[in-house]
Amino acid sequence: MELDLSLSAAELTARLVDIESVSGNERALADAIAAAISGLPHLTVHRDGNVIVARTTLGRAERVVLAGHIDTVPVAGNLPSHLDGDLLYGCGSCDMKSGVAVQLRLAGQVTAAARDVTYVFYDCEEVEAERNGLLRLSRSRPELLAADFAVLMEPTAATIEGGCQGTLRAEVSTRGERAHSARSWLGSNAIHSAGGILDVLRAYQARQPVVDGLSYHEGLNAVGISGGVAGNVIPDECVVSVNFRFAPDRSSQQAADHVRETFAGFDVRITDSASGARPGLSRPAAASFVAAMGGEPRAKLGWTDVARFDALGIPAVNYGPGDPTLAHRRDEHVPLAQIAECEARMLAWLAA
Amino acid sequence: MELDLSLSAAELTARLVDIESVSGNERALADAIAAAISGLPHLTVHRDGNVIVARTTLGRAERVVLAGHIDTVPVAGNLPSHLDGDLLYGCGSCDMKSGVAVQLRLAGQVTAAARDVTYVFYDCEEVEAERNGLLRLSRSRPELLAADFAVLMEPTAATIEGGCQGTLRAEVSTRGERAHSARSWLGSNAIHSAGGILDVLRAYQARQPVVDGLSYHEGLNAVGISGGVAGNVIPDECVVSVNFRFAPDRSSQQAADHVRETFAGFDVRITDSASGARPGLSRPAAASFVAAMGGEPRAKLGWTDVARFDALGIPAVNYGPGDPTLAHRRDEHVPLAQIAECEARMLAWLAA
Repeated sequence: MELDLSLSAAELTARLVDIESVSGNERALADAIAAAISGLPHLTVHRDGNVIVARTTLGRAERVVLAGHIDTVPVAGNLPSHLDGDLLYGCGSCDMKSGVAVQLRLAGQVTAAARDVTYVFYDCEEVEAERNGLLRLSRSRPELLAADFAVLMEPTAATIEGGCQGTLRAEVSTRGERAHSARSWLGSNAIHSAGGILDVLRAYQARQPVVDGLSYHEGLNAVGISGGVAGNVIPDECVVSVNFRFAPDRSSQQAADHVRETFAGFDVRITDSASGARPGLSRPAAASFVAAMGGEPRAKLGWTDVARFDALGIPAVNYGPGDPTLAHRRDEHVPLAQIAECEARMLAWLAA
Repeated sequence: MELDLSLSAAELTARLVDIESVSGNERALADAIAAAISGLPHLTVHRDGNVIVARTTLGRAERVVLAGHIDTVPVAGNLPSHLDGDLLYGCGSCDMKSGVAVQLRLAGQVTAAARDVTYVFYDCEEVEAERNGLLRLSRSRPELLAADFAVLMEPTAATIEGGCQGTLRAEVSTRGERAHSARSWLGSNAIHSAGGILDVLRAYQARQPVVDGLSYHEGLNAVGISGGVAGNVIPDECVVSVNFRFAPDRSSQQAADHVRETFAGFDVRITDSASGARPGLSRPAAASFVAAMGGEPRAKLGWTDVARFDALGIPAVNYGPGDPTLAHRRDEHVPLAQIAECEARMLAWLAA
């Protein structure tokens, strides 16, 4: 499985798609990427498991990271890739092997840019956070990620999506007292009491704050509810699982405080939480990126790995080919023209 | 395993308890009961599986049924029986082998009473309704159950409990539209909508009607709730399982109509329903029974097999030794004095 960097980014995408790399099974693809870039004299290549980092060392005043994950969700009868007119279909075509193809094309061509570049290819993005290769690298070799700005080449339909919202999950619960349902007044119904939790959710006014010029949109939602002991028993517990998506002007701690305050009077247990990321579009490297890519940047509402860069103090944006709403779908695909457009704009920006 | 009907009812209870008869395993006990009463010249005995019916045929104007189930819930380390002072412990001692012992004592002694008597011993009361021996008999040989009045000798602490409340279960549900929880406003949250169902339950005013002189107490309760797809998905369905306990002045159909009306605007699916039973204490046979037993009759709030007699047009009450709240407990027991009291009062009534 050889990756020829002289192929077009579109052709390279097809090659990448055809090397199956479901999370946990990235070795063959990581090997192919390492082989393709290891001989390039302008890059210093590091490997850590199936994470590959390649860096220019031109001594420029500014350094940017271009990052992409090389794993995919499980194959769903959508391999190998195939072309239908100007659209390339196949598992990972949109999320995000077309972005990885652009990274590889840039790694091959950009020998002496206006800014130093760090290319990061990482594994296990589509699974639980603890397996994420970028997280592992940020803990074991943070110096390899040092930069002034980062572009995560996730699918955004070639429009800059700035920062990302945070996400927090909590279990909000009520307690009651069991009783036989034929004598329900001897107990206290925890499911009925959970009506109070749903009241709070129904009345909740979600903020839509503007952060660094981009409009975010928060949301507080029940994503699960459970309660009940048996068909003839008044239940003594009801648990509502709540997901709070919060704008990047709140920290995880502030988000947790807000959720506890919102559900004051109920038992609240925060089960997991991931900070968002501010877009940081006013920093010089970001500003030049925005100018070079064109279009109107918008806020990223879903959580992405840009938050990891934010946690390292590095402003980051999402930018790449492919419609993000097609990700994880059996019919995921990417327009060839968008791959070419991303490559051309990124090339122009790095050369400027 | 021989049952000697000349033993006291208390001693007989201990013998019955020591013949294990968890639902489905009643054969040995049914055999012993059949053997004990088959030789009695004043009784005509019928057997259908593990259901045994014994009838006097004196040609009296009135006939009464004395019924008891011979099965128990699973043994919980509480066999064989043992005495502790005046209390007999053991699986089934309270629910309801002490009642069955009284039935057997009466069957042995009452050779020529003022009313004809039908003794019914039946299996599988503690499991799903379709296996219930009394239900089977009411379908296959309803003429064997024909009577003017029935006493179900379930534990009531030797106080008459009249009729019983009906029970109905329904699934009340809401529909929404799935969306990613990062863009919750693109969907519609079915769990939030279920707040409307809980509003109805919290505001519900349960009736406490007096029926045939006894005070019932209805209840409408959630006994289960479930909803949720994944931690990042706005759920499109939420189901609340509701249990309606209704007084015997409503039929099952009226109860279903009431539940549908109460949850107007929501999807309501009735999943099962069992009618209650009016106490019928004003009928002559019942009135003489109330007078003979003494004490103030109260309403039976839980559902019992008296409802099957009601469905056959036979007024019925619950009356027997043992505290009903001890039923199904590992430490279930019965006061010996209550067994003797029940036997004496029943004897007096039948002889009158």
